[in-house]
Amino acid sequence: MTPGDLVSPTDTEPGANGSVERLSLGVAARLSRYLQVLTQAKKMGKETISSQELSDYTHVNSTQIRRDLSGFGKFGKRGVGYNVDSLVSQIRKILRTAGQHNIALFGAGHLGKAIASSDIFADHGFRVVAIFDTDTRKVGQKIGTSAVRHNSELTTVVEEEEIVVGVLAVPTAAAQPLADDLVEAGVKIIFNYSEALLDVPPEVTVHTSSPAVDLLYALYFYLT
Amino acid sequence: MTPGDLVSPTDTEPGANGSVERLSLGVAARLSRYLQVLTQAKKMGKETISSQELSDYTHVNSTQIRRDLSGFGKFGKRGVGYNVDSLVSQIRKILRTAGQHNIALFGAGHLGKAIASSDIFADHGFRVVAIFDTDTRKVGQKIGTSAVRHNSELTTVVEEEEIVVGVLAVPTAAAQPLADDLVEAGVKIIFNYSEALLDVPPEVTVHTSSPAVDLLYALYFYLT
Repeated sequence: MTPGDLVSPTDTEPGANGSVERLSLGVAARLSRYLQVLTQAKKMGKETISSQELSDYTHVNSTQIRRDLSGFGKFGKRGVGYNVDSLVSQIRKILRTAGQHNIALFGAGHLGKAIASSDIFADHGFRVVAIFDTDTRKVGQKIGTSAVRHNSELTTVVEEEEIVVGVLAVPTAAAQPLADDLVEAGVKIIFNYSEALLDVPPEVTVHTSSPAVDLLYALYFYLT
Repeated sequence: MTPGDLVSPTDTEPGANGSVERLSLGVAARLSRYLQVLTQAKKMGKETISSQELSDYTHVNSTQIRRDLSGFGKFGKRGVGYNVDSLVSQIRKILRTAGQHNIALFGAGHLGKAIASSDIFADHGFRVVAIFDTDTRKVGQKIGTSAVRHNSELTTVVEEEEIVVGVLAVPTAAAQPLADDLVEAGVKIIFNYSEALLDVPPEVTVHTSSPAVDLLYALYFYLT
């Protein structure tokens, strides 16, 4: 077998020639990683970044990074690097995620509170516009600027607030019924922090976040 | 350019022929994803899983999945699929992460509590053996089975408990000094939940977890 065998046939340069081709999973994942580091760098007041620095932080090799970025016309200046601001806007444009996206968060426990009080989502254009819980003792409590609402308001809120993403920070057993309600209400993206395997129609995207798996992955590269 | 141009020269089949070659980032990432879904499936009492189901849950196409798994001698039975238990142990073996790894968790806030009380790490062989905070009001509090300790005990605990991973669930400004202390104590893997860009020596691996970036990535595939 040759290395090429491992590449999906849809793998392509990021947005080369202004094409509207869909990026492959691999390219989109790398661009997302660059964006994460660039956003952090911006917050820390860095104006430029070299491909080597990007490589150190993302674990993608610097040749690959230079190739990805030159694919959409960005060339780092020798000894200076890339302009952070300009790269951030360019990657957001390519990922077509430059707008504002409204999130509904489910679960006002420790994880829900951690998510709601973090500005990690806000930095990338996601706004938590509603927090839900089924526990009547939590309903009405303020978390950040939002008051916790009861799940029974889900359908109304999704429509009124134009929710595009539902984030599930709930126990595993609660996740599937909630996913069903979200799908019924028309939400197309579910971000799942529980361990449930969610059954959803094909037009709905589920992303399950698993820090332990990320850690296994990091560990592999340390152990080998 | 050809698709092959996008493949790193180290990209390789997972453990084919019992080789000790290092997996490429892409292969290791896919195996980690499969492992996540398989672990969830196991918890839900599923004994077998098809490549199509794995594909639905991981967003990796089923041809790629069958190729990855056949690379280490696993072939699904037509109409039945793969044996979940056997695939879990095989992938753990390939990722060389089958053992028990001890974690020290920093930060006993909402996020720290959410991590400590979740069994997500435990399911993958990671044990949170110590929780640290600098807030003296939190020191001594019980979280799960551990009492919160003060950061000043870091060096002693890392040595006594054979800590291999430090998880930072602390504010961004606190992350770099803590990373320095961990490096000094000999910890080689840092799992960073803050937004800090951490400077560490080359032999130390930092993994920064960013749910917002994962979400951007998911959103891209929905929007296009």
